[in-house]
Amino acid sequence: MKLDHTAKGVYVIAVTPFTPDGGVDTASVDRMTDFYLSCGVSGLTILGMMGEAPKLDATEALAISKQVVRRATVPVVVGVSAPGFAAMRSLARGVMDAGAAGVMIAPPPALRTDDQIVSYFSQAVAAIGADIPWILQDYPLVLTVQMTPKVIRQIVTDNPSCVMLKHEDWPGLEKISALRAFQRDGSLRPLSILCGNGGLFLDFEMERGADGAMTGYAFPDMLVDVVKLSGEGKRDAAHDLFDAHLPLMRYEQQQGIGLAVRKYVLQKRGAIAHDTQRAPAGSLTTAARAEIDYLLARLAERDPRARLVQTTGDRQPHVMSLADATTPTK
Amino acid sequence: MKLDHTAKGVYVIAVTPFTPDGGVDTASVDRMTDFYLSCGVSGLTILGMMGEAPKLDATEALAISKQVVRRATVPVVVGVSAPGFAAMRSLARGVMDAGAAGVMIAPPPALRTDDQIVSYFSQAVAAIGADIPWILQDYPLVLTVQMTPKVIRQIVTDNPSCVMLKHEDWPGLEKISALRAFQRDGSLRPLSILCGNGGLFLDFEMERGADGAMTGYAFPDMLVDVVKLSGEGKRDAAHDLFDAHLPLMRYEQQQGIGLAVRKYVLQKRGAIAHDTQRAPAGSLTTAARAEIDYLLARLAERDPRARLVQTTGDRQPHVMSLADATTPTK
Amino acid sequence: MKLDHTAKGVYVIAVTPFTPDGGVDTASVDRMTDFYLSCGVSGLTILGMMGEAPKLDATEALAISKQVVRRATVPVVVGVSAPGFAAMRSLARGVMDAGAAGVMIAPPPALRTDDQIVSYFSQAVAAIGADIPWILQDYPLVLTVQMTPKVIRQIVTDNPSCVMLKHEDWPGLEKISALRAFQRDGSLRPLSILCGNGGLFLDFEMERGADGAMTGYAFPDMLVDVVKLSGEGKRDAAHDLFDAHLPLMRYEQQQGIGLAVRKYVLQKRGAIAHDTQRAPAGSLTTAARAEIDYLLARLAERDPRARLVQTTGDRQPHVMSLADATTPTK
Amino acid sequence: MKLDHTAKGVYVIAVTPFTPDGGVDTASVDRMTDFYLSCGVSGLTILGMMGEAPKLDATEALAISKQVVRRATVPVVVGVSAPGFAAMRSLARGVMDAGAAGVMIAPPPALRTDDQIVSYFSQAVAAIGADIPWILQDYPLVLTVQMTPKVIRQIVTDNPSCVMLKHEDWPGLEKISALRAFQRDGSLRPLSILCGNGGLFLDFEMERGADGAMTGYAFPDMLVDVVKLSGEGKRDAAHDLFDAHLPLMRYEQQQGIGLAVRKYVLQKRGAIAHDTQRAPAGSLTTAARAEIDYLLARLAERDPRARLVQTTGDRQPHVMSLADATTPTK
Repeated sequence: MKLDHTAKGVYVIAVTPFTPDGGVDTASVDRMTDFYLSCGVSGLTILGMMGEAPKLDATEALAISKQVVRRATVPVVVGVSAPGFAAMRSLARGVMDAGAAGVMIAPPPALRTDDQIVSYFSQAVAAIGADIPWILQDYPLVLTVQMTPKVIRQIVTDNPSCVMLKHEDWPGLEKISALRAFQRDGSLRPLSILCGNGGLFLDFEMERGADGAMTGYAFPDMLVDVVKLSGEGKRDAAHDLFDAHLPLMRYEQQQGIGLAVRKYVLQKRGAIAHDTQRAPAGSLTTAARAEIDYLLARLAERDPRARLVQTTGDRQPHVMSLADATTPTK
Repeated sequence: MKLDHTAKGVYVIAVTPFTPDGGVDTASVDRMTDFYLSCGVSGLTILGMMGEAPKLDATEALAISKQVVRRATVPVVVGVSAPGFAAMRSLARGVMDAGAAGVMIAPPPALRTDDQIVSYFSQAVAAIGADIPWILQDYPLVLTVQMTPKVIRQIVTDNPSCVMLKHEDWPGLEKISALRAFQRDGSLRPLSILCGNGGLFLDFEMERGADGAMTGYAFPDMLVDVVKLSGEGKRDAAHDLFDAHLPLMRYEQQQGIGLAVRKYVLQKRGAIAHDTQRAPAGSLTTAARAEIDYLLARLAERDPRARLVQTTGDRQPHVMSLADATTPTK
Repeated sequence: MKLDHTAKGVYVIAVTPFTPDGGVDTASVDRMTDFYLSCGVSGLTILGMMGEAPKLDATEALAISKQVVRRATVPVVVGVSAPGFAAMRSLARGVMDAGAAGVMIAPPPALRTDDQIVSYFSQAVAAIGADIPWILQDYPLVLTVQMTPKVIRQIVTDNPSCVMLKHEDWPGLEKISALRAFQRDGSLRPLSILCGNGGLFLDFEMERGADGAMTGYAFPDMLVDVVKLSGEGKRDAAHDLFDAHLPLMRYEQQQGIGLAVRKYVLQKRGAIAHDTQRAPAGSLTTAARAEIDYLLARLAERDPRARLVQTTGDRQPHVMSLADATTPTK
Repeated sequence: MKLDHTAKGVYVIAVTPFTPDGGVDTASVDRMTDFYLSCGVSGLTILGMMGEAPKLDATEALAISKQVVRRATVPVVVGVSAPGFAAMRSLARGVMDAGAAGVMIAPPPALRTDDQIVSYFSQAVAAIGADIPWILQDYPLVLTVQMTPKVIRQIVTDNPSCVMLKHEDWPGLEKISALRAFQRDGSLRPLSILCGNGGLFLDFEMERGADGAMTGYAFPDMLVDVVKLSGEGKRDAAHDLFDAHLPLMRYEQQQGIGLAVRKYVLQKRGAIAHDTQRAPAGSLTTAARAEIDYLLARLAERDPRARLVQTTGDRQPHVMSLADATTPTK
C-alpha cells in the first residue's frame, strides 16, 4: 500500500528505542509500534530527525525499518534524508522493498535560492526513482532552508511522486492557507498536508486546512482526537483538549532536550522500556524530571489519559478512547 | 536611580508605537507608558528588538527614550545594541544623561568562540563607560550567539557594571539553575536574572530562581501576577493563571508575525492607538486576526482581564488587580 | 553628477582613516582622497564594509561623506546599508544633498527566499526615494544572502534607480556571463557591473564583461591598469600585471585581518597617516608585518610602484603611470 | 603503520574518480593512487569533503578505502566524519582493519561553544575507540565551527590518539604560531600540523611552523617541492615556485566549482579517466574550461610540469622532479 495525496490523520513521528548501553532496543521497537497503533494513528513515520536517524548506521536503519513495517497495520513512511544521494537511494530502495509506504526527504541546510531548492528535489527524485511516493519536509527553523508556497508548488508540480507536505514552518498558518488557495485556483494539484512543530499549532493548522499531524508528541492519542474533533467541526472541544496539553507540549518543544522529555514520558506510558538516547544527546536533570511529573499531574486533572501515566510500576501502554478524552474530569 | 543587581519583577519590553504613515506616534508613547505602569510593572525596557529599535534613526531613538524616561515612575532601561561601538556609545551616554536607569547590550551575530564573546563585552563596556549599569542579553535563537553559564560568569566577573542577565536562551531552565549554583558556590556575584522568550517558560523559570520577566507579552499584568504568585509560593495558582494565557502567548511567539499579534492586542487593550509596524514587518491576515479574537474570547472565560478587551469601542487601558486575576470565573 | 549605468573603471572602496586614539583622522581623509585620485580611479566608494562604516555614528558618517565629496573630482558613492530604513533614508538623503553621486545598499543577512530579497530592495527604494541612483551589493560570502541572476534581473527591472551591480559573489564569473546574456537577449536593461572580492578574480571578470572594479586593494593604481589593459585587449599584459600582485592581494584577502593588511600598506604608501582601525578589529603581529614587507619587496622586483613603498621615511603618496607599471623590471 | 605526530610532507586530499554514469571508477582509483605516489606525496587522505565522501554510500566508502590502502606505499588516512557516531565507528573500524594509518574527523556544523566542541571530540573518540590515531579537521569557513588555539590544545590534551591537526582556518597563520608557542611553553604535546585551504597560504604556513600540506591542488608535486624548499630554507625559491602556481590555485579555490576545476586538470594530467562528479555538483562552462587552459598555458612558461599537461592525447601521468621544477624556463 503506497502513500498518496489522500493521506490524513496522524502519522506519528516515531522515536527509536535504545537500550541503556546504546544498542537498538528491538523488543521496544515492537512495543512502541503497538503503542502507536493503540493510539489510533493513521500511519508511522520512522527515522525522522526526532527518530535519531543520523545516529544509526546504514544496517541498523534498514533493520529497524523492516521490523516496524512488518509489525504495523498502517502505512509506514521512512525518513531517507542523507548528505548524499547514494546513501539516500540505498535506504529508499531498501525500505520500499521491505514494504514501506513512502519516504520523506528534507532539504540539506546549504540550499538558499529558490532554484537551488527546486533543483535539489528533482535530483533527489532522479536518485531514488520516480516510482517512490515521497513527503517534502519543510522545516526552516532547524534546516535553515526557506521554501515559499510558490517553491513548494513548483516542487510538487515538477515531481508527480511528491504526495505530501510535512508542514513544519514556524509560523506556518499562512503557508497552509496559501497552498490551499493554490489548489482552489487550480495551480496546484491535490496534496496531503500534515503538520509538525511538535503539534504546537495543531489547533489552528487543522482549521486552516491541514489534513492532520505528523509529529511525535508523547500523547499521539490526543493528536488523533484533536484532528478528529476538528474534522467534525467541534471547534471548542478541540481547543479544550489541545489547551489542556499545551503546557506539556510546550515543555517538550525545547530544542536540544525535547526528545529527552518525549522519551521520558513515553517510557512512563510504557511505550518503550528505556528513555535512552544515543550520544550526542541532551539529558534531563532531576529538576527537569520533577517539572515534567508536575505537568503530568496537572494534565491528569483535565485528561484521564495522563492520570494512568502516574500509576507507577505499571508499564503497559494505556490509551483512552475519544469518548473518555473529551470528558474533562474537572 | 540606577539599575543594580537587586532588580526584580517585570521589566516589560515596550513596543514602539507608530502612526499609520510610519511616523513615531508620540501621543501613544505616553499612553503606552501609562498602560504599562498600570499593569504593575517594575520597569520598562525600551528600544529592544521587539521595540523595532533598528528601524529608528539615531534622533528618533533618543527622543523616544527621553519621552518615556520623563513619563515613567519606574526605572527605564534602553537597548543600545548597535553594529558599532560609536553608535552604541552615543545612544548610551545620551539616554543615561536623560535619566535612564541602565542599558541593554546584545552580542552581534558573528561572535562564535567563548573568547570572542567575552572580549566583545569588555570592548563594549570600554566604549560606553564603566559607569553605566548594563544588562547582558542572551538570545541565541535569534542572535545565533551561544554563551555557556561559564562565559556569562566570566563576563559578569570582568565587568562590575553588568548587573542583570536578560535570559532568553531556549531552552534555558538549566542555565538559570547553573548560574544560581555558581552564586551559591561563591564563584559568581549577585546578579539579577529576568527572563524573555515571550514568557513561554516563565512558570518554571521563576521556580528555577529567576527574579522576574523581561518580555513584552500583551498582558504584562498577567506576567506581574505570575511573578508575584510564584514569589509567594502559590505554585498551583501561578500555573493556573499562566496556563490560561499559554494558548495566546504561544500564538504571539511566532517568529516574524509575533510583534503584529502583540501590537494588535495592545491596540485592543487601548495601550496604543495603532498597531502599525515600520517596514519591513509581518502583518496579520483576516484569518489571523480572527484567530486572535477567538483566543481572546476563550481567555476571557478564564481571566477577566481579557474580557474587557472584547468591549469594542472602548479604548481606555484596562488592567485588573491580582485579586481579580486569580479568581477564575469559570 | 549622478551615477548611471555607464559607470566604468575603478571605484575604489575607500578606507576610513582614524587617529591612534580612534577618532576620525580628518587630515588623512583629504590625503587619502588625493591618493586615490592620483591612482587614476574613476570614482570613490565610501562607508562600505571595509570602510568600517558600522563603526561610525550617524554624525561621523555624514561628516566624512561631505568631506570626501567636497574634495573629490570624481563621483563619490556612499554605502547606506543599515539595519533599518529610517537610518538608511537619513544617511542617503544627507549624502545626496551633500553632492554624492549615488548610494550602495547591501541586503540584510536574514533574507533567504527570492521573494524576500526582491521585496526588500523595493522597500529600500521606497524608503530612500526613487530619485537616488543606487548600487546593488551582492556579497554572499559575508552577507549569506544568495541572489541568482534572475533575482538580480528582477530587482533591476523593478527599480529604475538601480544602475549598478557591485559584483562580489564568489565564485562569480558565471554570474557576470549570465547577466550579460540577459542583456543580449533583451530581458535586462543596461547595467554597470563593477567587481569586488578584493580583486582576486579581476583578470577574468573583465574578460567576462565587467565594467571595472570596486574594491579597495592597496594598489588601486594596479587595478586601474588591469582594467585599462583588459579594455584594450592586451590580455597577456593584463594578466602579467595582475599575477605580479596576486601574492599580496591574496594576503590582503584574509577575513578578519584583511583590512589591517590594507591599511598597513596604505600607510606605507603615504595614503593615510595611521593604520589604526576602530575596535573591534583584527591587528597585525610582527610576523604578519614582516610577511607583508617581504611580499612588497618581492612585488617591487616586478612592479616599480611597490619599490617606492619601501623608501622608508617617505610618506608622500607615490603612484606610477601605466607605462611604468607595464614595464616589469625583472 | 599507524599515523603519529611526526607526520610531515604532503598528504594529498585525493579525489574520488567516477565514470560518466556516476559509478565509482575503480580503474582510475589505482591510476590516481599511482599518480599521487609519483608526485612524491608522503601520504594520501581519502574520503574528505573534496573527495565527495558524503555522496558515497557505506559500501562504496569502504571499498574505495580498501583499494587505495592496498595500492598505496605511503600511509592512507580516511575521512570518517558522519552525522552520527554509529556510522563514524563503522567506517573507522572498517578502514583501520583494512590497513589505514588513521582517520580524520571534522566537527558537525551545529557546534558553537568551546565546551560543545571539546565534548564532541571526546564522544567521537569514545565511539571509534581510543586506539585509532586521528586528525582533527579545523575548517571554519565551510563548517562554521570556530576552534581557538586553546580549544585545540584542550582536545589534543584530552585525547592522546589525536596526532595531527588539519589546519584549514582562514586566515590561519597566527593559529599555527599560537599552537607552536604552546608547544614551546610546554602546554601542548607534539602535534603534526598539515595545512589545507587549497594551499593558498602554504608559502607562509611553512614558515610559521607547519609540517606540510594536506590539500588536493591538482599539482601535488608542486606542493611537495614547496614544502621541501621551505624545509631547506630556500625561501625565495619556495615563493617563486608557489607564486607561479598561485593564479591557478586561486582559480581552483572557488567554492562550488573548485572540485570541477581540480578534476578537469587532474584528467588533463592523466591522473583520472573522467572529470565526472556525482550530483549535486558544480560544472564547468566552456568559458571556464578555456580560462583554465589559458592559466595552464601561462603556468607552462614558468613550470615545465604544466607544459606536459598540454600534450593532448597523452594521458599518462607526468610528474617532474624537483630539479626540473625549480629551474624556471622563462
